[in-house]
Amino acid sequence: MKLCQFGPAGAEKPGLVIDGNIRDLSTLRGSWTPADLSPEGLAAIAALDLSACPVVEPDRMGVPWTGISKYICIGLNYADHAEEADLPIPSEPIVFLKAPSAICGPNDPTPYPVNGSRLDWEVELGIVIGKTARNLSQADALDHVAGYCVLNDVSERAFQMQSGQWDKGKGCDGFGPVGPWLVTRDEVADPQNLDMWLEVNGTRMQTGNTSTMIFSVVQIVSYLSRYMTLLPGDVIATGTPPGVGMGIKPDPVWLNVGDTVRLGVAGLGEQSQTVVQAA
Amino acid sequence: MKLCQFGPAGAEKPGLVIDGNIRDLSTLRGSWTPADLSPEGLAAIAALDLSACPVVEPDRMGVPWTGISKYICIGLNYADHAEEADLPIPSEPIVFLKAPSAICGPNDPTPYPVNGSRLDWEVELGIVIGKTARNLSQADALDHVAGYCVLNDVSERAFQMQSGQWDKGKGCDGFGPVGPWLVTRDEVADPQNLDMWLEVNGTRMQTGNTSTMIFSVVQIVSYLSRYMTLLPGDVIATGTPPGVGMGIKPDPVWLNVGDTVRLGVAGLGEQSQTVVQAA
Repeated sequence: MKLCQFGPAGAEKPGLVIDGNIRDLSTLRGSWTPADLSPEGLAAIAALDLSACPVVEPDRMGVPWTGISKYICIGLNYADHAEEADLPIPSEPIVFLKAPSAICGPNDPTPYPVNGSRLDWEVELGIVIGKTARNLSQADALDHVAGYCVLNDVSERAFQMQSGQWDKGKGCDGFGPVGPWLVTRDEVADPQNLDMWLEVNGTRMQTGNTSTMIFSVVQIVSYLSRYMTLLPGDVIATGTPPGVGMGIKPDPVWLNVGDTVRLGVAGLGEQSQTVVQAA
Repeated sequence: MKLCQFGPAGAEKPGLVIDGNIRDLSTLRGSWTPADLSPEGLAAIAALDLSACPVVEPDRMGVPWTGISKYICIGLNYADHAEEADLPIPSEPIVFLKAPSAICGPNDPTPYPVNGSRLDWEVELGIVIGKTARNLSQADALDHVAGYCVLNDVSERAFQMQSGQWDKGKGCDGFGPVGPWLVTRDEVADPQNLDMWLEVNGTRMQTGNTSTMIFSVVQIVSYLSRYMTLLPGDVIATGTPPGVGMGIKPDPVWLNVGDTVRLGVAGLGEQSQTVVQAA
């Protein structure tokens, strides 16, 4: 299944994408909640009678589910991206957090931060947790994954690098577009073989495949679960392939107001954000 | 006012501390929510008729309010603590995040993490946001603060230092005791002159005062609000004074299963945690 939510920010309705069309399920459910992402919750959604659910063409897509308590990021998880960033290949996953206030819909505008100067992009595969996960083996990891989504781990590199702690440059408002869909795990045959791409103003900047991750989805979920309990609805950004603005030679390229970023992961849909002056 | 919540985890009831006694307000309110922390919300609480609210002696104190979406930490914010950690005095606040799943009641046991080896303590003054804050001047900062609380920024130093990104060593389950009270701003005459202390097994380890902060409460709130929107209910840990286990000479001291940590900030109450084997 492809779960989505649509409508004005804060008043989204739940939907399912069927044969490329969005069906409005708001007569059946209020929103997609963390409880809906459990195996039982997803089975209940699959059993719903959608005959009275109309096809809609929403003006805005929201985050595909409600109730993200944690947005965890894995840094430098593609060997060739670590190389372009001039950083050593990590021996263990590098873990940091994105402020939940940064989370937004997949096509919401990206506010250019006050005092910003080095706004950058990062297409990433997102893992969505469906079942409470603590001290998991790698063998058990996937059982706790509800599905996958597209993420843009928007970054302000001057903020990110200022103190050594990256969170400040990752957590500005609008730096966490999620979606357009949560694609359930059964529809993703191999999460380690997904093409991913990102364009800025129509020019291809990132071209990658999840096959070149240093730490795989199962390794990441198992690893994180040994440090903190992963809760249903939590999302994990698994790192970005080469082609970020920071890595462009001879001079880095930064986003400016008016630029448009498009990105996608095979089978998981596309996002598009335009950079706007912060209100 | 001193807001608190008490009772079993996940089923806490709201209370107020009056003349040292906890009054049970569960017949009037379900819990203390972020909306209750606004100036209007606090005024409404102050106007409640408590005559039918009994004094209780709870078995467990919870987080004093419900709905913390972000737990932001400021690192190395006491000049003498930076010195004991052998790190330079920061020129700007160092910002990182604590995983919300780490948040717990003020006296809940601290689970010793799987594979942990360097468990440490940090008494801190917590700032509680009451009103949405974005791009604030320092002059406007305090208007957005609901009050203050005691925090223990529990840390696993091996996890914290492993990659350079600190979040992994700050976000384990139970690493975020909050409370016992949220003391409203009007009851704290000067947040920059509060004694703070911490004991391990009855031995004084930390003795400090918020007067030696590098960046003050108003500077921190204003600074953070220029990077990310602060929401009602968000909490900010403002750094710890000297005396953490990592800084003890000639050899650092780490917590072990069975150790008990007690800590407090003048006027804001006390916490006590016992280290237990993680389940």
